[in-house]
Amino acid sequence: MKFTVQQIAETLGGVIEGNPEISVNTLSKIEEGTEGSLSFLANKLYTPYIYTTLASAVIVNKDFVAEQPIKTTLIRVEDAYSAFAKLLEFYNQVKLNKTGISQLAFISLYAEIGENNYIGEFAFIGENVKLGKNVKIYPQVYVGDNSVIGDNTTIFPGAKLYSDTIIGKNCIIHAGVVLGADGFGFAPQADNVYNKVAQIGNVIIEDNVEIGANTSIDRATLGSTIIKKGVKLDNQIQIGHNVVVGENTVIVSQTGIAGSTKIGKNCMIAGQVGIVGHISIADNVKIGAQSGINTSVKKEGAALLGSPAHDVGEYRKTLVHFRNLSKLVARIEELERKLKEKE
Amino acid sequence: MKFTVQQIAETLGGVIEGNPEISVNTLSKIEEGTEGSLSFLANKLYTPYIYTTLASAVIVNKDFVAEQPIKTTLIRVEDAYSAFAKLLEFYNQVKLNKTGISQLAFISLYAEIGENNYIGEFAFIGENVKLGKNVKIYPQVYVGDNSVIGDNTTIFPGAKLYSDTIIGKNCIIHAGVVLGADGFGFAPQADNVYNKVAQIGNVIIEDNVEIGANTSIDRATLGSTIIKKGVKLDNQIQIGHNVVVGENTVIVSQTGIAGSTKIGKNCMIAGQVGIVGHISIADNVKIGAQSGINTSVKKEGAALLGSPAHDVGEYRKTLVHFRNLSKLVARIEELERKLKEKE
Amino acid sequence: MKFTVQQIAETLGGVIEGNPEISVNTLSKIEEGTEGSLSFLANKLYTPYIYTTLASAVIVNKDFVAEQPIKTTLIRVEDAYSAFAKLLEFYNQVKLNKTGISQLAFISLYAEIGENNYIGEFAFIGENVKLGKNVKIYPQVYVGDNSVIGDNTTIFPGAKLYSDTIIGKNCIIHAGVVLGADGFGFAPQADNVYNKVAQIGNVIIEDNVEIGANTSIDRATLGSTIIKKGVKLDNQIQIGHNVVVGENTVIVSQTGIAGSTKIGKNCMIAGQVGIVGHISIADNVKIGAQSGINTSVKKEGAALLGSPAHDVGEYRKTLVHFRNLSKLVARIEELERKLKEKE
Repeated sequence: MKFTVQQIAETLGGVIEGNPEISVNTLSKIEEGTEGSLSFLANKLYTPYIYTTLASAVIVNKDFVAEQPIKTTLIRVEDAYSAFAKLLEFYNQVKLNKTGISQLAFISLYAEIGENNYIGEFAFIGENVKLGKNVKIYPQVYVGDNSVIGDNTTIFPGAKLYSDTIIGKNCIIHAGVVLGADGFGFAPQADNVYNKVAQIGNVIIEDNVEIGANTSIDRATLGSTIIKKGVKLDNQIQIGHNVVVGENTVIVSQTGIAGSTKIGKNCMIAGQVGIVGHISIADNVKIGAQSGINTSVKKEGAALLGSPAHDVGEYRKTLVHFRNLSKLVARIEELERKLKEKE
Repeated sequence: MKFTVQQIAETLGGVIEGNPEISVNTLSKIEEGTEGSLSFLANKLYTPYIYTTLASAVIVNKDFVAEQPIKTTLIRVEDAYSAFAKLLEFYNQVKLNKTGISQLAFISLYAEIGENNYIGEFAFIGENVKLGKNVKIYPQVYVGDNSVIGDNTTIFPGAKLYSDTIIGKNCIIHAGVVLGADGFGFAPQADNVYNKVAQIGNVIIEDNVEIGANTSIDRATLGSTIIKKGVKLDNQIQIGHNVVVGENTVIVSQTGIAGSTKIGKNCMIAGQVGIVGHISIADNVKIGAQSGINTSVKKEGAALLGSPAHDVGEYRKTLVHFRNLSKLVARIEELERKLKEKE
Repeated sequence: MKFTVQQIAETLGGVIEGNPEISVNTLSKIEEGTEGSLSFLANKLYTPYIYTTLASAVIVNKDFVAEQPIKTTLIRVEDAYSAFAKLLEFYNQVKLNKTGISQLAFISLYAEIGENNYIGEFAFIGENVKLGKNVKIYPQVYVGDNSVIGDNTTIFPGAKLYSDTIIGKNCIIHAGVVLGADGFGFAPQADNVYNKVAQIGNVIIEDNVEIGANTSIDRATLGSTIIKKGVKLDNQIQIGHNVVVGENTVIVSQTGIAGSTKIGKNCMIAGQVGIVGHISIADNVKIGAQSGINTSVKKEGAALLGSPAHDVGEYRKTLVHFRNLSKLVARIEELERKLKEKE
């Protein structure tokens, strides 16, 4: 991709200050600008870089006033950050605009392919699979029998969807994700041996969900494990069978949620959190990193920290005392000494 | 799959109450029953649902007494829960009964394939590999040179077995599992550079083991990393080189075990636990979630919690005091105040 | 591979004691020696095994003095451990010496393949990819468009490199690794919905880096996520967008590093550690297992433990008091009782 500053300024409704014929082929941070890159200045802390950047052009707010000579070409717009974000988005759309069905993919005769699908090399599309419009299936992806994938959803290389997985519209599933593996269910026998409990449910991912690399979501024993619309899951998250994650909840990497737990909507769960099975977390709850949640959280909007987790304010106070335990012990010793003196 | 209630009742040795001609094609929870589904009632808490369920038929205990009119067809059996579990098992066996060797798989001329094998598209079977009877290798699986896989074992899509991996009978290896990658062994040099220590051992998985999605088990430096018979590993578990996990031990997701540690048999290790290298854990030990184990556990049947972990009873008492640290500090301040008054 | 003891002794410059015609075909620990295996004795603790080992030959230090009759053949060398390590290395090189471009791989017409490359079955090599000399790409690997891989680098089965990934020389990337998936960046909207922030940067892996199974490293939002030369990453590590890991730093499995954090060189970070985003860790810092790092570490060579982490010495003292909290409470009660008596 190569564009002139003129073309970009027109797209953004911006005003050029400098050479409109200069062409750019990539986007960069202002402090890492190189010849051929287009950058932006939105945060005042970065203003000094505009006088030294090697970027060929920089998008700035229209009221930006230079205090030194500037070598790079400027594009003045209403809101430099939004304008640049739009370009990022556009750049990505062009770059990721794969199309066509590879002759090297395996597609069941009983699968329904949608309009304008991309199916990459060595992808496997099973029986009775239904793909919507503009679906992108990257190479080496596995889509098990009876799975359904909605319009505009992208599945990156090597993700594995076991049979009966349902994915909504506008979802992004990253490489290494496993959806629908068996839940961890075993019935202990008298001789310490475990019998497997068959897991015949499935996984449902609603619209506008993103799932990070190497995350695994188990199928339900019966019924469905459900990730509701707008949820964003980071990498290496583990979600057990029959879990439900509510709308627009965000979960950071390496967090684990055990079976049958229900998470509310608009929650923010930080990284490396562990949540036991068979509990409920209310809406709008915030959970700090590395916390352990072992009972239901009924209070909407609660903020929790620690393992086991408490109210974040209380927990932080307790942590201060914990750090001071040596001093506390010294104070107790002093009290004991004084009391002994008195005896 | 479609069966009449008549067929199912005959299989289970049950007695029908209602229409024996009704057909069902899936299994469901009683509270999520739909037309065409077969459900069950075993737990009394769910009794109210039998009067409202949309399931076409419900399996109940033979002594169940209805207190209101029931619309659905009943199948009365000795033990509703066991009968339903049998159906789940049967349903899964039929659904997962893949067979045939895909023309799109790569199979070395020097590999031995067993009777009734399934080898899916884009699977790789290396030199000198030996597959038993009824082995199922799903698409995109990699089976490295000299690996051996026992009868009735299933390897789900995209699992990777490095060379020399030995897997027993009746095992289930889920998608994204990596067996036999190099252990993490490096020798520090004078200049802060690390030299790799070659890892030439292998991984041995004994019979009746299940390994969850995206779990990784490293090959031994020399000798074998061994997962003994009946072990059940959940998703995203990390097992280091030369570790041995004893018979029928169960480990929950995201737990990590460092190199050369030996875990006893019949242990239960919860999620997100960390266990250091070069220690031993006795038989029948229970370890709570998010615990950190940094020394050997010699006491059989010990129950541990915390990081570093202690006896679970003691640890819970300590946690109560920890939560009350603010109050404890207040009590010390009060003591100090009173003592000062006396001076 | 089959060698006579004569051939091995010549390679190592060793002196044979016993039958030089005996042949060996594998390497083993001395306590696990079998007929046909070659072992070594370096650590005195293992000396008793030399009298009972079934290994066909054992490498010993030249000054080793037997105190009982020995059945196995000895090879005496200057330094038994180093000699054996060299053999391990050699064994692995021979075993892993795959070559040739599979007809079943997909290679873009616009990719540049180097001399002596191995490209396995069902591997995908995208547009404008450049591979150096002696690069090994195992089956089912995905190398996205515009990626560059340096000389002597090995990518094990099923690793996924998103577009624009740069990997240096002499690197080892294990199975299940995902490089360059989107960073976790979302802009919250008024209605609790999150908009994706496009992630157009890349991942750069410098020379001599090893990355363990199922580890994921996200691409930068803009610019690069960088793993510097000599870094060793274990399995299941998560590294966020725009992170930089300094030279020769070693990180153990299941650790997570959030976005934009900079880790110094020669650091040692244990397993299951969590490090928040947007901080810096100085050079030579050591962080204990399961620690949580929530602020920058400015002191070079600091040793930290705990969540949140403190100086390891202080933290261990605090932990002793923590374990004794019940006794501390008893002491406070005793003080309260005594003081009451006095009133």
